[in-house]
Amino acid sequence: MTSPSTLGRRGDAEVSREAIITAARRAFARQPYAAITLKAIAADAGVSAPLVLKYFGSKEQLFARVARFGDEIDRLLDAPLPDLGRHLLHALLDAHEQRRDPLIRVAFALQHGEHATLLRENFRDQVVARLRSRLTGPDAALRAELVLAHLLGLGVLRKVVHTEAISVAERDRIVDLCAPGLQHLLDGTV
Amino acid sequence: MTSPSTLGRRGDAEVSREAIITAARRAFARQPYAAITLKAIAADAGVSAPLVLKYFGSKEQLFARVARFGDEIDRLLDAPLPDLGRHLLHALLDAHEQRRDPLIRVAFALQHGEHATLLRENFRDQVVARLRSRLTGPDAALRAELVLAHLLGLGVLRKVVHTEAISVAERDRIVDLCAPGLQHLLDGTV
Repeated sequence: MTSPSTLGRRGDAEVSREAIITAARRAFARQPYAAITLKAIAADAGVSAPLVLKYFGSKEQLFARVARFGDEIDRLLDAPLPDLGRHLLHALLDAHEQRRDPLIRVAFALQHGEHATLLRENFRDQVVARLRSRLTGPDAALRAELVLAHLLGLGVLRKVVHTEAISVAERDRIVDLCAPGLQHLLDGTV
Repeated sequence: MTSPSTLGRRGDAEVSREAIITAARRAFARQPYAAITLKAIAADAGVSAPLVLKYFGSKEQLFARVARFGDEIDRLLDAPLPDLGRHLLHALLDAHEQRRDPLIRVAFALQHGEHATLLRENFRDQVVARLRSRLTGPDAALRAELVLAHLLGLGVLRKVVHTEAISVAERDRIVDLCAPGLQHLLDGTV
């Protein structure tokens, strides 16, 4: 049996872990690997540096956790192929409303030097390969990457560059405009 | 009249300026603004730090030079509207062969903190506004941004993340696959 107090403590731990991951994502998106300290991440997350070590072991292990593309990719791909173009856009824009973008972290590969190899490998294995496995016909891998290129660029303009029209546009308008091109790439019927 | 020796010296100066700009682009793409020194840029360019100061004045002015989107955008947009989808892709892939990408530097806005405002403004004024002015019909600004999102994402996957298929694909294949979606956005006939 789980007592309420145990639940409460587990809840707190979960909140702290999430806060650390969020702070770490922010740090790894903005600074080169070498410039980042666990102390600064702890301060941003409102926890102590020893707690970060307790939960994640080391800066390297925390980076490994943050460099993973996980459940968010399940949600992105959770639609039958004929609807996948629209679904990908809706799921991405949903994620933006929760102040997340499931793809954007790979854009920061350049600033992490040799550590970015992991980021690139994860993107290839956990994102490109999964979308690619859904597609049939010629150039499936290339088509998967071209779809991801559009979604990634959308995230960069919307969440990093904040260009005007894309930031205020109604979601349905973005979906209506982009879905045909994405679906064309997904279907591969050129 | 210009003597051969004057020509020679002007040629050298041009080469040095170009080397400094290339080194500065590399630095501003990989490190946060505060971490960059003119000394390091000079070393990377194979010139002296005083020469960097002589040509560009200060780190701020060098950043301003590097944050500009210039002639490269003229080349990108140099086609009539009905062919612009294909042309944009060809021009971007041409630029990649010269190890340049005319759009990608805006993706590094996040790491330059307050200095990135200039990068974002330039992208808005020198890239988005120029493409937008070529388009007619509803949502022209949004459509321009969505086209640029795709091109930007293409550059990030091809030149930063180096995903496999996109890096080795034949140019014509990329153009054939992406042009219909881009042209659909440029035409605005939804």
